[in-house]
Amino acid sequence: MALPVSRRGLLGGGVAAAGVAGAFLAGRSSEGATAEPDGPLSYAFRGEHQAGIVTPAQDRLHFAAFDVTTESREELIALLVAWTEAAERMTAGGSAGPIGPVEGAYNLPPDDTGEAIGLPPSGLTITFGFGPGLFRDADGKDRFGLADRQPDALTTLPHFPGDNLQPGRSYGDLCIQACAQDPQVAVHAIRNLARIGFGTVAVRWSQLGFGRTSSTTTSQSTPRNLFGFKDGTANLKAEESAALDEHVWVAADDDAKAAWLAGGSYLVTRRINMTIEVWDRQPLGDQEAFVGRSKDTGAPLSGGGEFTEPDFDMPGSDGPVIPADAHVRLVHPDLHGGARMLRRGYNFVDGTDDLGGLNAGLFFIAYLRDPRTHFIPIQLLMAKQDALMEYLKVTGSALFAVPPGTAPGEYVGQALFA
Amino acid sequence: MALPVSRRGLLGGGVAAAGVAGAFLAGRSSEGATAEPDGPLSYAFRGEHQAGIVTPAQDRLHFAAFDVTTESREELIALLVAWTEAAERMTAGGSAGPIGPVEGAYNLPPDDTGEAIGLPPSGLTITFGFGPGLFRDADGKDRFGLADRQPDALTTLPHFPGDNLQPGRSYGDLCIQACAQDPQVAVHAIRNLARIGFGTVAVRWSQLGFGRTSSTTTSQSTPRNLFGFKDGTANLKAEESAALDEHVWVAADDDAKAAWLAGGSYLVTRRINMTIEVWDRQPLGDQEAFVGRSKDTGAPLSGGGEFTEPDFDMPGSDGPVIPADAHVRLVHPDLHGGARMLRRGYNFVDGTDDLGGLNAGLFFIAYLRDPRTHFIPIQLLMAKQDALMEYLKVTGSALFAVPPGTAPGEYVGQALFA
Repeated sequence: MALPVSRRGLLGGGVAAAGVAGAFLAGRSSEGATAEPDGPLSYAFRGEHQAGIVTPAQDRLHFAAFDVTTESREELIALLVAWTEAAERMTAGGSAGPIGPVEGAYNLPPDDTGEAIGLPPSGLTITFGFGPGLFRDADGKDRFGLADRQPDALTTLPHFPGDNLQPGRSYGDLCIQACAQDPQVAVHAIRNLARIGFGTVAVRWSQLGFGRTSSTTTSQSTPRNLFGFKDGTANLKAEESAALDEHVWVAADDDAKAAWLAGGSYLVTRRINMTIEVWDRQPLGDQEAFVGRSKDTGAPLSGGGEFTEPDFDMPGSDGPVIPADAHVRLVHPDLHGGARMLRRGYNFVDGTDDLGGLNAGLFFIAYLRDPRTHFIPIQLLMAKQDALMEYLKVTGSALFAVPPGTAPGEYVGQALFA
Repeated sequence: MALPVSRRGLLGGGVAAAGVAGAFLAGRSSEGATAEPDGPLSYAFRGEHQAGIVTPAQDRLHFAAFDVTTESREELIALLVAWTEAAERMTAGGSAGPIGPVEGAYNLPPDDTGEAIGLPPSGLTITFGFGPGLFRDADGKDRFGLADRQPDALTTLPHFPGDNLQPGRSYGDLCIQACAQDPQVAVHAIRNLARIGFGTVAVRWSQLGFGRTSSTTTSQSTPRNLFGFKDGTANLKAEESAALDEHVWVAADDDAKAAWLAGGSYLVTRRINMTIEVWDRQPLGDQEAFVGRSKDTGAPLSGGGEFTEPDFDMPGSDGPVIPADAHVRLVHPDLHGGARMLRRGYNFVDGTDDLGGLNAGLFFIAYLRDPRTHFIPIQLLMAKQDALMEYLKVTGSALFAVPPGTAPGEYVGQALFA
């Protein structure tokens, strides 16, 4: 921890050093923003919970899922140790390895790839998750002696109506979410963690997100998705600590087999392609009816402002003013036993589809306490009835268990292996 | 021009209006930066040359190439008129159409898709180019009566050693480069121009770039590519107006058939995948020998600082200190009759390749006066001898003629159709 790390290594100068200082000032909480006035924005890697969940949603994302290619429990643990060290360095504005990109011996590969030299921490967070395959592989084999600790809730998500999943964009034994204000910093983090994992893991899929679609604190303005609508208005926020305990953080007695997950969460990713060319030809009034909100203000069609509760009973000219199949109605907690989730999605454009349109949409990310109560029923109702589904095609899907925060001296997920 | 346009349409408020003001303050020059102190950054669409060439390289890119699907000259011209109007509005911070995303009739599709509501101009530039197919299609057919105006230099680029081109990432009848500080603004621009072109053009390919790899003015710091090296140190800069005339801008007498291109340029795009996982295992000294520069400072291996001229004759321990196959040597103007180009490339990561690595690299963009003298010989020598080629795979390639700037009252490329 006291190493003079920086993205330029030992010779590194002012900017990165200030990043380290910022990280130390942050203390051990992963929740608090840690920018000094006019200083670089950085978040401590260690804390009660992993950073990158209730952390104010950064603008850019690089997400990667990995297949574990070893059957050695020792190699897997060694990787988690190495990833922890590298993540702690990089989130503080340092290099991936202790030496750095340009200060090492000329006859050795550098321990950092160098594209983030000179860049500040940029609010980087690195969040790790464990997929079902870590506990039992596709053949049911318990490669790492972890099967008896697999949470009941951690299984492959069911096939939902409208799912058009590409295996190469779905699933994974491990995942890493890197969020930052600068995409080069997020890419650098994933690229170096993949490099460190070479021989132990292989990248299964990766996803860039160019613009956040959620706010995770009350101080952030609500961004817009590629339908052009405000997204995440009713999202859980960092300030709602009681609601986070109820809906996001796994409690110690949630699953007797998975006490290691207490203080952690479940992470659902869904790569949701939007047929934006078709959407763009829908009348404004229809778009608003599908969503159930004003495109301009984000207010529910029953009136008020963005944060006014929808009135689902208010009559309109032809049935309720918020239609029966409106998105805002079908995902509302009132229909799902009060269940809420913390969303953290990003807009994406990945080139072109086969039909002369953009391969674009929303990379949905949500953190929640239990997918069986907080995601699957909601997604099922949405898939069956939501008017928006006509403009969506889900091409990727994954579920991970996200260990709690990493204590000093520990590696991420250590309790699972204890 | 006096329409009170904004991304929110007629009701739009301060930010976008300030963007329009900023654009007017810019006058008619496409070169000058136009930010007022503390005001939004915007560039005028009209000017002597198109914006987005010598404009200070913005951080983010969305590039799209289109196939023209009509055979009607009138429809093609109508599209260019509509694109010109929309580009002028959007670069000034306004919406794509005159009405806006949320102020139109409820029974009509909006004339803007809305995801940029509230966002400032963000230094958006929109640059249009014409591919060979506009003059003669794949069957040699002159769909639009333009064949006799096709510049001799505007043909499909030759196949170079190491090219592994994917047709779906190459070529195109038309192209649009959108650069901005905010990727959501660049994506919004391309998405709306594609929407406007529906029925006349289809997106052939599109490419996001998350980080610039070139500086185009002396005031910008040199960024790094995904090899971790500074890129574009010797790039042509906006301040070198005589060199721009010599190497970038097409002169009136360059090609008698293509007087319409005077003041324009040629645009080469190359999607260069890097085998970054292999690169990352190369020793630092080897990486520097391949490039011919210090990874730390960017200085040539013959010494000095980043901007010191390389000394190709300086002896090293085993041959010249800058190796015979070093990148910096093989692309140096001294080997190519003094030819230089203005590069404007971007780093990209597009998910995963088939080998468990990142599908990542450099989306090369260069503007130059004549590809026959300023690109093809350089690329040929590089493809045959450059040590870097072992770590590169070119998956996309395209050449476009970029018309000069658009005068008031004209549409982009109008002289071609006069």
